[in-house]
Amino acid sequence: MKPVTLKQIAGQLNISVSTVSKALKNYPDVSKETKLKVKELAKVLNYQPNAFAVNLRRKESRTIGLIIPEIVHHFFSTIIKGIVNQAEKEGYLVIILQSNESYELEKKQINLLLNQHVDGIIISLANNSTNFDHLNQVVLSKKPLVMFDKIAKLVNCSKVIINDRKAAYTATQHLIDAGCKRIAHFRGSLLPLNSIDRFLGYRKALLDNGLPYDPALVYISECDDTSFEEGKMNTRKLLEDHDDVDGIFISTDLVAIGALTECNKLGVKVPDDIKIIGFSNWFMSKVVSPALSTIDQPGYLMGEMAFKQLYKEITMQKNKESYYPEIIELETKLIVRESTAS
Amino acid sequence: MKPVTLKQIAGQLNISVSTVSKALKNYPDVSKETKLKVKELAKVLNYQPNAFAVNLRRKESRTIGLIIPEIVHHFFSTIIKGIVNQAEKEGYLVIILQSNESYELEKKQINLLLNQHVDGIIISLANNSTNFDHLNQVVLSKKPLVMFDKIAKLVNCSKVIINDRKAAYTATQHLIDAGCKRIAHFRGSLLPLNSIDRFLGYRKALLDNGLPYDPALVYISECDDTSFEEGKMNTRKLLEDHDDVDGIFISTDLVAIGALTECNKLGVKVPDDIKIIGFSNWFMSKVVSPALSTIDQPGYLMGEMAFKQLYKEITMQKNKESYYPEIIELETKLIVRESTAS
Repeated sequence: MKPVTLKQIAGQLNISVSTVSKALKNYPDVSKETKLKVKELAKVLNYQPNAFAVNLRRKESRTIGLIIPEIVHHFFSTIIKGIVNQAEKEGYLVIILQSNESYELEKKQINLLLNQHVDGIIISLANNSTNFDHLNQVVLSKKPLVMFDKIAKLVNCSKVIINDRKAAYTATQHLIDAGCKRIAHFRGSLLPLNSIDRFLGYRKALLDNGLPYDPALVYISECDDTSFEEGKMNTRKLLEDHDDVDGIFISTDLVAIGALTECNKLGVKVPDDIKIIGFSNWFMSKVVSPALSTIDQPGYLMGEMAFKQLYKEITMQKNKESYYPEIIELETKLIVRESTAS
Repeated sequence: MKPVTLKQIAGQLNISVSTVSKALKNYPDVSKETKLKVKELAKVLNYQPNAFAVNLRRKESRTIGLIIPEIVHHFFSTIIKGIVNQAEKEGYLVIILQSNESYELEKKQINLLLNQHVDGIIISLANNSTNFDHLNQVVLSKKPLVMFDKIAKLVNCSKVIINDRKAAYTATQHLIDAGCKRIAHFRGSLLPLNSIDRFLGYRKALLDNGLPYDPALVYISECDDTSFEEGKMNTRKLLEDHDDVDGIFISTDLVAIGALTECNKLGVKVPDDIKIIGFSNWFMSKVVSPALSTIDQPGYLMGEMAFKQLYKEITMQKNKESYYPEIIELETKLIVRESTAS
């Protein structure tokens, strides 16, 4: 079943191809009668205009690009779902690319999406992206751009975020309220803004409660990839070096589950000997034993809001209205489970 | 920074736009000298031809469509990653759509992708897809199509699968070898071909070992969505109705983890009182307690192979070579952990 062409329609009506084309586009120099005949036959034959040609004329592709650091990741996959579902509601398609936490790849992918003439781009930064020229170029070229979760303050675009500092403060305060006096922190990678903010929230909670801040209790990821194995390894080191620690705030659930697993293996009792709280509320955290307390990050909503903001900007630009970057901050929630029970 | 246009190049060289366009396309009626000048300036100015116009000419979009039932799902997200990474190696972009296990949505999305003129489509079917006209239409229109995991035998296209029946047989045989004599099966939804095959593998293993097959021990999903909660609910029912059951083969890890969680809650000891084996090898299965035995399904490889096959067909079609559908069967592996220890 080959697609129906303008030529076929022209042949059946015994008129020229250019008349058919003009009729479909409602040109004034074609009679009403001919327009009606052409449109009816086009409908009967289920004529579909070539998407490339339509896009070329409309100057829109009705596709957007999404760059995320890692697809196999509960938090990011809920975000993808939020973006894809919301985009579909507006008739947009989503091209998805994974940066593998690599700045070089991220830069290449931005160019790929621009060459493909997507109508806008949504991105969460790779951990080692510290140069933002590639993103500023998107902004300068007036292509709508929205960042989420891992953002760069120096890029002048809209952002959908949570208040990482406040959420980390809440998590740490919860450990203190549960009786912890010497609290370690596994902060993940050094560079991403949200790691920094979570660390600052942790430190502020300690100081506000009159507890000393000890840099020796803060563990930084050796690799870019914060993982289950890292949680196990850091926990082993921590228990060897600091046997007085009674609480750990861990900046992502996957690492926290590694920590729980290692404690179980070493016979260290959670929450009696040591209390653990994670961050993100992965599905897994409620099925591990003991169930993990954590901070709920609204991934699906974050995806929805990121697309809604991008769509708003695409539409305003099409209508030649000017728009200004917006910062959308979503609420987080403390989820108390067994791993921090008093 | 606006993109450079043909008009700018023409202006700087004081020649017509059509000469510039012809020079870039190597038309014979433009002098060698002019071609050289145009191409050099285009390079200096970093001229990028409009992707729509290029695609219109080439009749290829260098994008493919991917339809999956559910994005937030460990197995499917590893597949997405395999497809996206492999596509990028060949310079292809991937548009991703989620069918939410709905046949109606899946049909709509196939049309959306055809209208967008993707070069090919990769799909895993929704659970309630029993009419395949929308897919046969893709095949008839000569658009390369590859199915994976949840496939339809009646669609004449390439497929990347595992041997579900054999893998289920292996899982059930493992329970029998571990001493189980009365084995239940949570089979998930009724319709998908892989649910049926897993059920048949389970039944054959029982019969081959001289164990009676009892239909009352087979639990079918009430809803389309096989979930953690379903695993808990079925386990409660099973333990009430059949207190002699000593093993369960569960056709997906998420449901199996629900079953484990419920056993832990009710004080039923796994593996001493009852042994449980899942299917898929989600990351989660190794961190729950007791760790879950399962069948490893190679998701990432499945994604890679699906794209490779699609790319092969796209390329052969472009070169006007004929190709025939292929069935690619990937190996699975029994993973023995604590939940089935003798």
